[in-house]
Amino acid sequence: MASNPYDAALAHMTEVVGLQYVITDASALRSAETSTFSTGHRIPGIIRPGNLAEVQECVRVANRFRVPIYPISSGKNWGYGSRVPAADGCFLLDLGRMNRIVDFSEELAYVTVEPGVTQAQLSDFLRERGSKLWMDATGASPACSLIGNTVERGFGHTPYGDHFGNSCGLEIVLPTGRIVQTGFARFPGATAASSYRWGVGPSLDGLFSQSNLGIVTRMTLWLMPAPEYFQAYFFRCEEPEQLPALVDALRPLRLDHTIRGASHIANDYKVLSALEQYPWERAGGVTPLPGALMRELHGELKIGSWNGSGALYGTKRQVKEARRLLRRALGGIADKLQFLDDRTLRMASAFAKPYEFLTGWNLKRTLALLEPVYGLMKGIPTEHPLASTYWRRRTPPPAVMDPDRDGCGLLWASPVAPASGRHASKLTALASGILLDRGFEPMISLTMITERSLACVVSIAFDRELAGEDARALDCYHHLMERLAANGYYSYRLGLLSMARGEQPDSYSDLLRELKRTMDPAGILAPGRYVATDAAVAEKANARTVVDSGATANGGMHAMQSL
Amino acid sequence: MASNPYDAALAHMTEVVGLQYVITDASALRSAETSTFSTGHRIPGIIRPGNLAEVQECVRVANRFRVPIYPISSGKNWGYGSRVPAADGCFLLDLGRMNRIVDFSEELAYVTVEPGVTQAQLSDFLRERGSKLWMDATGASPACSLIGNTVERGFGHTPYGDHFGNSCGLEIVLPTGRIVQTGFARFPGATAASSYRWGVGPSLDGLFSQSNLGIVTRMTLWLMPAPEYFQAYFFRCEEPEQLPALVDALRPLRLDHTIRGASHIANDYKVLSALEQYPWERAGGVTPLPGALMRELHGELKIGSWNGSGALYGTKRQVKEARRLLRRALGGIADKLQFLDDRTLRMASAFAKPYEFLTGWNLKRTLALLEPVYGLMKGIPTEHPLASTYWRRRTPPPAVMDPDRDGCGLLWASPVAPASGRHASKLTALASGILLDRGFEPMISLTMITERSLACVVSIAFDRELAGEDARALDCYHHLMERLAANGYYSYRLGLLSMARGEQPDSYSDLLRELKRTMDPAGILAPGRYVATDAAVAEKANARTVVDSGATANGGMHAMQSL
Repeated sequence: MASNPYDAALAHMTEVVGLQYVITDASALRSAETSTFSTGHRIPGIIRPGNLAEVQECVRVANRFRVPIYPISSGKNWGYGSRVPAADGCFLLDLGRMNRIVDFSEELAYVTVEPGVTQAQLSDFLRERGSKLWMDATGASPACSLIGNTVERGFGHTPYGDHFGNSCGLEIVLPTGRIVQTGFARFPGATAASSYRWGVGPSLDGLFSQSNLGIVTRMTLWLMPAPEYFQAYFFRCEEPEQLPALVDALRPLRLDHTIRGASHIANDYKVLSALEQYPWERAGGVTPLPGALMRELHGELKIGSWNGSGALYGTKRQVKEARRLLRRALGGIADKLQFLDDRTLRMASAFAKPYEFLTGWNLKRTLALLEPVYGLMKGIPTEHPLASTYWRRRTPPPAVMDPDRDGCGLLWASPVAPASGRHASKLTALASGILLDRGFEPMISLTMITERSLACVVSIAFDRELAGEDARALDCYHHLMERLAANGYYSYRLGLLSMARGEQPDSYSDLLRELKRTMDPAGILAPGRYVATDAAVAEKANARTVVDSGATANGGMHAMQSL
Repeated sequence: MASNPYDAALAHMTEVVGLQYVITDASALRSAETSTFSTGHRIPGIIRPGNLAEVQECVRVANRFRVPIYPISSGKNWGYGSRVPAADGCFLLDLGRMNRIVDFSEELAYVTVEPGVTQAQLSDFLRERGSKLWMDATGASPACSLIGNTVERGFGHTPYGDHFGNSCGLEIVLPTGRIVQTGFARFPGATAASSYRWGVGPSLDGLFSQSNLGIVTRMTLWLMPAPEYFQAYFFRCEEPEQLPALVDALRPLRLDHTIRGASHIANDYKVLSALEQYPWERAGGVTPLPGALMRELHGELKIGSWNGSGALYGTKRQVKEARRLLRRALGGIADKLQFLDDRTLRMASAFAKPYEFLTGWNLKRTLALLEPVYGLMKGIPTEHPLASTYWRRRTPPPAVMDPDRDGCGLLWASPVAPASGRHASKLTALASGILLDRGFEPMISLTMITERSLACVVSIAFDRELAGEDARALDCYHHLMERLAANGYYSYRLGLLSMARGEQPDSYSDLLRELKRTMDPAGILAPGRYVATDAAVAEKANARTVVDSGATANGGMHAMQSL
């Protein structure tokens, strides 16, 4: 018999999946433990099951030996922790091999996928069969898992941007190894399993998103019929003070569905980081970016303080009317409002020079930025935004980018605010101030993710190879999260470090922990992921009585090490 | 001390809410036990708490004495069981006194309400303050609770027709008496508590819909900005065989959001029952309605085999384009397609005669039917559809209608199908056959409740005062539910009798029962409601081994009587 539970579990899981699908090579494990920020969680092995039965069997082995497992789909959760588990000592359960597109309906506009299916794979699938359906894509990377992003409640840029809101029919392996299917999918032969979300009786889908209560092994994603006509819009505001009026002008159009997709507003830092790396030379080697240099760059690159994009979908006449309403709403508020469709884009690429002459708009230079954004609004995945994670690096992004491997420092905070100008203004001013004070460029985007909400993403980008930078960035991140919460702006999604910090005890998290104990009595599934462990909560409660809360930042992690 | 737990609990709950808010009068209890179909569940008392703390205290008393309580909001769950609990011997916890509108935002288009707030109350509230927001209403009654309908996942007729899909921020009293708030509402001062659904971490909203896991005491409902222009459409098809083409023509428009509201298609029986009572005299006293008479009525009342309604919302130009697309889609499929707006309606009311001369459409007679339907598509509640519950009665509906009191027999089945012509046709043919075979008129409506789904409602309407009719209707209902399920059409919502029949054991219902045991260890909250009790499941499993499943129909109820 193996000498300790980890070895024993590993031996049994190896029997389940086969030796070639178990990774214990030290360098591979170190790389899986590497994120875009500093974490200390170790991974004893990576297990790659190939099907549902193997996932169940691995879960049973984990229960038998009481060792924690941590499922990932593609593990590209950059800015939030990449592949790194929320607790120390978890086996990584890599579901990437389960990459079948299980069901597809052109008529009802849905696709049912396994966790390993990537954005690129679905995009290719739809194109190859000449489908008239569009997927929604995030800017993360074509190699990202669809399920991974959806269960994290990530978002994209088309009218189907609220990914979790456009999904149903989950297949889940519970922490005990049993399988449940949600909605009508639980009933044999249910005809509406992939078209109707709620099913009958209590609806459990939400329980398995941002959660450690089950492993999602299959899911239906709704797709969007390609519109007859598509037109993107881009606008900008020169002055930062124009933001509240902008948001207040867009909200009614989002509420009445004139704008059906997620309108996206990025500040100058965000746009700049998408266009180029940190201008080390012009900045004279100092950080953060000097204000005077930013003003120069505004002019050179035609960047506003706020830069918007979005798209109109419909028949030619529907889009024409939406364009009229958008023009009317943004008149006197946005300094520049441009529209772009496939025809203009083709012409622009071919005749960039005369186009510039006619319009004053240097299309060629901005096309490099515009094309991927334009594509995203049609649900075409792109690797382009990934380059911005290399912002503070002194070497250019390699051909095959890997932010974890390449020392790119990135921490994302993603507070949600109501879609109101006042909140947009307060939230972004707060975040900007905190980042600038600590020497980081405040890269901020606001996405009108739903009719009433703004999802704000604040990126802290840094160079992990610079001594002390990891710690400075973490300090900035934690301070930012604290100040945002104190002002009522809570994140729609948490990074590893926020989970480890644990929850303030409240009745909601008490209930979650009760459900966790019921559904995962041995506590083997992704401990600490969104649902705090009892040990972490107890430790936090104890710590609070003697020291300030800062000292307990790693409380959750410490408790895990006893496993 | 009181002699039995019921008396003791009643005494304590009376102390909590005050004597004037406890009803134990025999005739009031008998009337609360009366539904639109036969049930045997008894109610020992009605408790009417006035606020959150009183609800909590009543729940604690129920735990202490292990007596079951059954919360209702307005209790107008007609066709599914009215106020009658899913188990015998439950105290009714009537939340009708908690009727505050707690929060409202014109800017972000939402309202936060307590369970006692009715459709009429919110409608008045919006009108009185000159709000530019529309609510969504169901056809049930102006006196229906908004929360009651929403947690049952009921639906209406505007673009906000999927009620539960347009809600967030639930406040819940757990079966232990603790309070949780869902989404961001759980965090102090969260700015997006009423605008963003998911919050962070596992999302629990779904757990508390169609459920017995908590009492919803507060909830945010999203409202719709009134459009610049509103136009209703009505169409009909003479032949039953036109249905599949109709659904297939409408689906793309629903999927691409040209039609944003729920398009509604009703068969001739459904429309007839909305226009008048059973034509006893012309039918020569026989049921079901003779086919030849129905054909006569088609001509007289301008009813088609299928009759559709819906509305277009937007600017004048948006509606104009939607009208063009709808005309194109239904050309050659619908026999008649008419549009109606406020102006036409006013003119029609004034000039019904010349209008008929010009258009051939007898507007005056149909206005009686059209006006409430027209209003519903603007979210204006109406009592009109309630009259159809008197269909088979031999006396006309009284001024103040009460189907429970008045012996109206009504059983609703509400199977969901994908929005495909093939399924619409198969489902409605199946239901029609079963009802006609058993002597009932198959009143059927199909609502395109979401982009991909049809919610079908099949009404079995009968006269409860007729000997043997209760039993015949129940037999028909159970057979219908069984055949629908066997063909893959499962109901989006269950009536009392389907709940009592219990679940087929599967891992999903196993999980629900585990959650129920964890969250409600004493089993005091609405036992048997959507989540089967352990006793009922055990009994059903035993019964299945010796007799056919029909014999166990009351398994759940029987188990309850031991309480």
